[in-house]
Amino acid sequence: MTERITMAHGAGGGASRRLIEEVCLPRLGNDLLSPLSDAALLNVDGARLAVTTDAFVVRPLRFPGGSIGGLAVHGTVNDLAVSGAEPVVLTAAFVLEDGLALAVFADELDAMAKAAAAAGVRIVAGDTKVVEAGAADGLYVVTTGVGRQHADPAPDPRRIEPGDVVIVSGPIADHGIAVLLAREDLGIDAAVRSDAASVWPLAEALIDGIGDGLRAMRDPTRGGVATTLNEFARSAGVAIEVDEAAVPVNGPTRGACELLGLDPLYVANEGCIVAVVTPDVADDALAALRAVRGGPAVAGGTGAVVIAEVLSGPSGRVTGRTTFGGRRIIDLLAGDPLPRIC
Amino acid sequence: MTERITMAHGAGGGASRRLIEEVCLPRLGNDLLSPLSDAALLNVDGARLAVTTDAFVVRPLRFPGGSIGGLAVHGTVNDLAVSGAEPVVLTAAFVLEDGLALAVFADELDAMAKAAAAAGVRIVAGDTKVVEAGAADGLYVVTTGVGRQHADPAPDPRRIEPGDVVIVSGPIADHGIAVLLAREDLGIDAAVRSDAASVWPLAEALIDGIGDGLRAMRDPTRGGVATTLNEFARSAGVAIEVDEAAVPVNGPTRGACELLGLDPLYVANEGCIVAVVTPDVADDALAALRAVRGGPAVAGGTGAVVIAEVLSGPSGRVTGRTTFGGRRIIDLLAGDPLPRIC
Repeated sequence: MTERITMAHGAGGGASRRLIEEVCLPRLGNDLLSPLSDAALLNVDGARLAVTTDAFVVRPLRFPGGSIGGLAVHGTVNDLAVSGAEPVVLTAAFVLEDGLALAVFADELDAMAKAAAAAGVRIVAGDTKVVEAGAADGLYVVTTGVGRQHADPAPDPRRIEPGDVVIVSGPIADHGIAVLLAREDLGIDAAVRSDAASVWPLAEALIDGIGDGLRAMRDPTRGGVATTLNEFARSAGVAIEVDEAAVPVNGPTRGACELLGLDPLYVANEGCIVAVVTPDVADDALAALRAVRGGPAVAGGTGAVVIAEVLSGPSGRVTGRTTFGGRRIIDLLAGDPLPRIC
Repeated sequence: MTERITMAHGAGGGASRRLIEEVCLPRLGNDLLSPLSDAALLNVDGARLAVTTDAFVVRPLRFPGGSIGGLAVHGTVNDLAVSGAEPVVLTAAFVLEDGLALAVFADELDAMAKAAAAAGVRIVAGDTKVVEAGAADGLYVVTTGVGRQHADPAPDPRRIEPGDVVIVSGPIADHGIAVLLAREDLGIDAAVRSDAASVWPLAEALIDGIGDGLRAMRDPTRGGVATTLNEFARSAGVAIEVDEAAVPVNGPTRGACELLGLDPLYVANEGCIVAVVTPDVADDALAALRAVRGGPAVAGGTGAVVIAEVLSGPSGRVTGRTTFGGRRIIDLLAGDPLPRIC
C-alpha cells in the first residue's frame, strides 16, 4: 500500500468512500459499523440507543452564522436526528494548539453551550489535549452523541423504492459558501450565512407526521445534496432524478456559486435535511416540515419542497433534469472543491 | 482573558485542572460533567450507562509496546473500567494529515481492531477528516466509549475515608518512559515497553471481589500516580501518605527515570489502576487483583501492592515517606515534563 492520504479523502465524496470501504471496514467492520449510516443503532439493557461521532476541523474557526463550537454540536446532534434518534447527551474532545488565546477557546465553549441548550442536549464528558504551535490550526473538536431511537422502523436508505419522492427541508449550500467566503479573500461581498442549526425538530416532525412512510433521511453535509443522493441511490439500487429548477438556493448563495463555478448541489449544509418518502405521504411530509418554524440555532422547514423522484434504474445513478429540458449525470465527487468546511 | 493555551494545559496537572475548572466548567458544567470523573454515569430508558471521551495525540505514533491506535482503544476502555462500567461500544474519529501513508493509517486501524477484540468492545461509528500537511502530526485519534454500569455504588473518590488503603495493580511509569525514549534521541538504551492494555478485568475483579469496600478507582495516565492521588485527596478532603519504597517500578524504567531526573510517580501509565479500598478488604482486594493473569493487550494484576494510606489531614495533601524516613510533599505538577504521551 504505497498510496497516501490526500485532502480528497476528507471531502466526503468518492475518495472518502473508498478510504472507508477499502481501508477502514475490512479492519474494523462489524454489523453495526458496516452499514455506514449516520449513527449506529444498538440495544443496551433494553434501551434503544443511537451513537455517532464527528471530527470538526473547519477553517476559519468563525464564519458568518456560526463557528466551530456550535458546528460541532449541531453536526453530531443532526447525525442522531436523521438516524431517527432524539439527541440526549454529547461528549466533546478538544485538540488545542499551544499559543491559542484562551478567549478563543472560551468563545467556542460558549457557542457549544448555546447550541447544546437549543438542541436540548447536555455535554457530559470531555477531554482536552494540547499540541505544539502549528500542529492543529488553533483548535479541533470531536463530538460524540448518544441518542434515544425514536423512529420505528429507523429510516434506512435500503428501504427506498422507485416512485418515492425526495424532499429537502429548505435552501441549500449556505454553509459551505459562508465558510469559503470567510476563508478566502475572493473579492465577493455576499450576505451568505451558514445554516448551522439543530434539525431534530424537523426530523421529529417527519417521524411523528408520516411514520413508516419515511424511508430515508440524511443531513447533506460534506459533499452536499449530490453526495447524499448518490449514497441513497447506491444503497437502494435505484436511480434518482433531480428537478434542478426545484432545488431551493438563496439568491446570494446562488450568485456566489456562479461566480466561483461551484454547483450548489455539492456544497455542504449544516441545518437542512434530505428525506425520501413514499408518494402517498409526500404532501403530509411537506406540511409537517413547513409547520416547524425554527429559531435561534434550530432549523425551520418553511421552505421544504420536493426536489427529486426515485426511478427504478439504472441502479446507483443520479441525474439532473435542467430547466432547458436537458439531462446530466450528478456523480460522486472525486476531488475536493471545498476542503475543511466542517 | 489575555492568557494563552500552553503545553502545560495538556499535561494533566495543575494547569489542566485550572483550564477545566475555570474555563470549561463555568460554560458547560452540569450535574453529570461537573464531577470530573473518568466517565459520566447516566440513565437512558432504564439502562445505566457510562460515557467517556479521550483525544490521543501521542508522538511518535508508534513506540515499544504500543501505538496510537491501540492506546486510543485502551485509554477509553480504561476510563469506563475505572468508573465501574463494563465497556460495550466505542466510536473513533480521526484527523489525518495530507500525505500520511495509507499503510500507517491501516496499521493503526489494525491495532485498534486488535485492542478492541482484546477488550471485548466493538467500534460502531467513525469519522475521518483530512487537514493540510503539517497540521496534525500525521494522525490524531479521538475515541468515545459507552459502557454498562457494573459497580453499585460506583467508585467515587468522595467516598474515601481516613484509614483506607491505596493499592496499585502493578509496576508504574512504563508507558511514559517508553514513549519518551522512542521520541527523543537521549542515548539511553533501555528495554522499556509501554504497559498499554485493557484494565477491565482488573476493575471487574475488584468490583466483584470487594463490593462497596471499593471506594475509588482510577487509571493514572497523564500526570501519573501522583496526580491521581492528589485528585483523590482533594475530592475527599483527606491526606494520603505514600510509602515510596513500596511503589513498584520495573528496573529499566527506574534506571531511565534516574538518568532523566524524572519521578516515576509523575509518569503516565496506560495499563494499571490505582484503587482505594477499606482496610478490612485490603487483603481480598490484593488477592482479587493478583488472580488476574492478563495477556496480550489485557493487563494483569500479579504485581498488585499497597502503596499508601489515607490520613485525616491536612486536607488535600499528598506526602511521600522515603526509604530513609524523610517526608516530602507530592504536589500537583505545574508544568509539563512529558508532553504528548497519550
